[in-house]
Amino acid sequence: MNPQVLPAVLLVLSAVQAFQYQELVRYVDEHKEEYVETLRNWVAVESDSSNVQKRPDLHHMMGMVAQKLQLMGGTVKLVDIGEQELPDGQSLPLPQVVTVQFGRDPSKQTVCVYGHVDVQPAKLEDGWATDPFNLTDLNGNLYGRGASDNKAPVLAWIHAVEAYLALNMELPVNVKLVIEGMEETGSNGLDAMIMAQRDTFFSDVDYIVISDCGWLSRRPALTYGTRGNCYFFAEVEGPKQDLHSGVYGGTVIEPMTDLIGILDSLISPSGKILIPGIREAVAPLSDEEWKRYQDIEFDMDHYKNKTGVHQLMYNNKVDLLAHMWRYPTVSIHGIEGAFSDPGTKTVIPAKVTAKFSIRQVPDMDPAMVRKQVTEHLHSVFAKRKSPNKLKVTMVIGAKPWLSDTQNPLFEAGKAAVKRVFNMDPDLIREGGTIPIAKTFQDVTQKSIIMMPIGGFDDGLHSQNEKISRYNYIEGTKLFIAFLNEVSQIRKARV
Amino acid sequence: MNPQVLPAVLLVLSAVQAFQYQELVRYVDEHKEEYVETLRNWVAVESDSSNVQKRPDLHHMMGMVAQKLQLMGGTVKLVDIGEQELPDGQSLPLPQVVTVQFGRDPSKQTVCVYGHVDVQPAKLEDGWATDPFNLTDLNGNLYGRGASDNKAPVLAWIHAVEAYLALNMELPVNVKLVIEGMEETGSNGLDAMIMAQRDTFFSDVDYIVISDCGWLSRRPALTYGTRGNCYFFAEVEGPKQDLHSGVYGGTVIEPMTDLIGILDSLISPSGKILIPGIREAVAPLSDEEWKRYQDIEFDMDHYKNKTGVHQLMYNNKVDLLAHMWRYPTVSIHGIEGAFSDPGTKTVIPAKVTAKFSIRQVPDMDPAMVRKQVTEHLHSVFAKRKSPNKLKVTMVIGAKPWLSDTQNPLFEAGKAAVKRVFNMDPDLIREGGTIPIAKTFQDVTQKSIIMMPIGGFDDGLHSQNEKISRYNYIEGTKLFIAFLNEVSQIRKARV
Repeated sequence: MNPQVLPAVLLVLSAVQAFQYQELVRYVDEHKEEYVETLRNWVAVESDSSNVQKRPDLHHMMGMVAQKLQLMGGTVKLVDIGEQELPDGQSLPLPQVVTVQFGRDPSKQTVCVYGHVDVQPAKLEDGWATDPFNLTDLNGNLYGRGASDNKAPVLAWIHAVEAYLALNMELPVNVKLVIEGMEETGSNGLDAMIMAQRDTFFSDVDYIVISDCGWLSRRPALTYGTRGNCYFFAEVEGPKQDLHSGVYGGTVIEPMTDLIGILDSLISPSGKILIPGIREAVAPLSDEEWKRYQDIEFDMDHYKNKTGVHQLMYNNKVDLLAHMWRYPTVSIHGIEGAFSDPGTKTVIPAKVTAKFSIRQVPDMDPAMVRKQVTEHLHSVFAKRKSPNKLKVTMVIGAKPWLSDTQNPLFEAGKAAVKRVFNMDPDLIREGGTIPIAKTFQDVTQKSIIMMPIGGFDDGLHSQNEKISRYNYIEGTKLFIAFLNEVSQIRKARV
Repeated sequence: MNPQVLPAVLLVLSAVQAFQYQELVRYVDEHKEEYVETLRNWVAVESDSSNVQKRPDLHHMMGMVAQKLQLMGGTVKLVDIGEQELPDGQSLPLPQVVTVQFGRDPSKQTVCVYGHVDVQPAKLEDGWATDPFNLTDLNGNLYGRGASDNKAPVLAWIHAVEAYLALNMELPVNVKLVIEGMEETGSNGLDAMIMAQRDTFFSDVDYIVISDCGWLSRRPALTYGTRGNCYFFAEVEGPKQDLHSGVYGGTVIEPMTDLIGILDSLISPSGKILIPGIREAVAPLSDEEWKRYQDIEFDMDHYKNKTGVHQLMYNNKVDLLAHMWRYPTVSIHGIEGAFSDPGTKTVIPAKVTAKFSIRQVPDMDPAMVRKQVTEHLHSVFAKRKSPNKLKVTMVIGAKPWLSDTQNPLFEAGKAAVKRVFNMDPDLIREGGTIPIAKTFQDVTQKSIIMMPIGGFDDGLHSQNEKISRYNYIEGTKLFIAFLNEVSQIRKARV
């Protein structure tokens, strides 16, 4: 081609793209209600991966995903990823991973989108205003467990592709999706599956996109790091069965007393982690990080309001963001086996299991964290000279992830945000964990971007989780724009 | 009457009594299966007084008791005892107390029997081998929640009276029963009802009998003391709703951390109560007590076996019995509001409420215990400088009870045990609480005896509660014999 003709051709191409984009946006707007209905059907499935009794629902959920993608004409596979070993020694099948491919043009870039359709536990009596598994539309918000984490984002990706197909427009890039059902409990089995398919399904992947997180404010965001998660069970076992606290109290060393004692050794009142070695392993805060955090749009008062806490752990923005994103933290989630219902029960629980987790960060290593926590708890427990038995298990060991933001993928992301929302995104990190990000990075050696569409106040993992109609629908447009922008990376290189 | 004729008359009377007793025993043996069926019907009602959602079942239970007694021809009253105030400020009606009278011969003694038909919570998934509300007969044991505590003993008393009536035999004493439905949560409302009826229903009562406890070994026992119970809720509230521990961990002081911290200040690893003032208030152990404990039949190895604990809190009989019966103890029962299900949930619970109780003893006072515990927890909490809120509530404040064993009532009890079981009973105390014993003593100024028929291994308040057929049926005979022995007290006085 005559190089002098090129600018004119690009101009025409650009005009065509702008027209196509408007058509796609119109299509999305016309199908809003259909998208909400599909989300309703997906939220109705209690695909709680942490509860083995819900495993049939989870299998059903994966089947629904596969069926939807098959109807769209994608090349769908339901991939077996083996069995899950339960603490009692039994095992049960893991939910299959759904993979799909749309387009296989070797001249195009290939974008691989990761998402999950399993959810955290939820019960109406936990304090939900509405049935968590009946999507409820209130003032432009769609309430339901898994609405924002991660069912709506997964659907937004599917709808983005569907819009191109429905309008008979060529996809600007090849699109692959990997949808799993074990994210909330540590993506059990997915690591091995990615390794196994490195030279097949993942061999032609150029970029990986994950939309399993949220914005920090009303400003759209791109995410370049997540914390890991080491989730522990600490079980103290004493009598062979629960005992009446009147009849037996004063004669046995109670497992609850021991458990409370060792849990109290994990964190100081001000939130400092007391497990030897944990804080020492953390990468120091760089000046550049400090500067970046300082520039981020973040309203401390709004954050206080949102959480309902009148005094946060740190009272300046940089410290708070740093402890949210790049320092480890310990949370004690609860105790299984003790009396947890309303009312009074005078019981000495025989076996109690504390659940707590450590969000770990670069340069902490899960295997080392397991060793540090286990040794620390056993050492504290030994000092008590209790006749009870302690068992410490790390049931999840998900790695943190950190990306370089100076790459074309993030430029594409910024351009897409600019197109849909007419503003620049914040570059943020995520305090939560997307366990598989680190694996994708290690195995494929490709760039990863996290492109959230969840709102900053979606209440992930808590009562009244929701996604707004605005984020769901504009998020679908963002993904459409992003696919187009990624195709430009290729063109820029040509 | 010619005094020389008296011995002959007494001999004849004694022979008549012996014959009558054999008839009554035969009647009981012939109606065993019917007694078991009635117990099955009673256990089937989930009369859990600690759970307000089960209040309709509890009302139904009281109605069943009243109906049974009415059919027997007793003078039955269902006594209103007012309303229960709930922590949220609402109130709901307390279950009515059933009173009944059989016989009103002023020349006879009047025995008043107290019992309760409410039960502790129970769920199959707590680890029951059988449905807790479906009485299950296995190897001579009748498994079910409330079987031993206290439905079978109440029925045994009813059947004892019923046997006399069915055989058209004159009751040797007047019998009154007081059956309540709030014992497991502190006999709410019963104190006031007893006070109010002091000069009416209770005015002619000579002796009070309670069978809401168990034997210490296979040897039958009579009980002369119980511990009290001060049951506390310690609620720590922080964020306005549960938070995702990844997203928010590191930015808020978590209520669970605070709660664990203050709970850890209650008891030392060896079981010593750390709340200032508690231990100082306890009556010192007398030499006589030491001697009495030393003489009691008690097998430490069996106790270890029963509890499944290889090392008890004390390794000699006297210390162990003393800490079971006459020293206070703290038990932490569990935490409401935290994650307590199987599986993993990465939640920061927003509001968590610990449930713990102190079994208090002479000379501790519940009002003082409330003050000591509340002040101690607030003082420990204040040192943490937490932004969260702490609320401490004492929801049960039941007094301990202690009786003099040198009185005719205990002699009658010993004679009845001798007759049925052909051995002397152990004189024991009870680590658990029968809240109303102290009130009966204070208001009526009459002698109280506790005459247990529950086995030493009945599993009260724990999984797989049971009563043996042997204890249920022989217990019924014991009550028949005891009524007869009590009538002898009168004769001895004449």
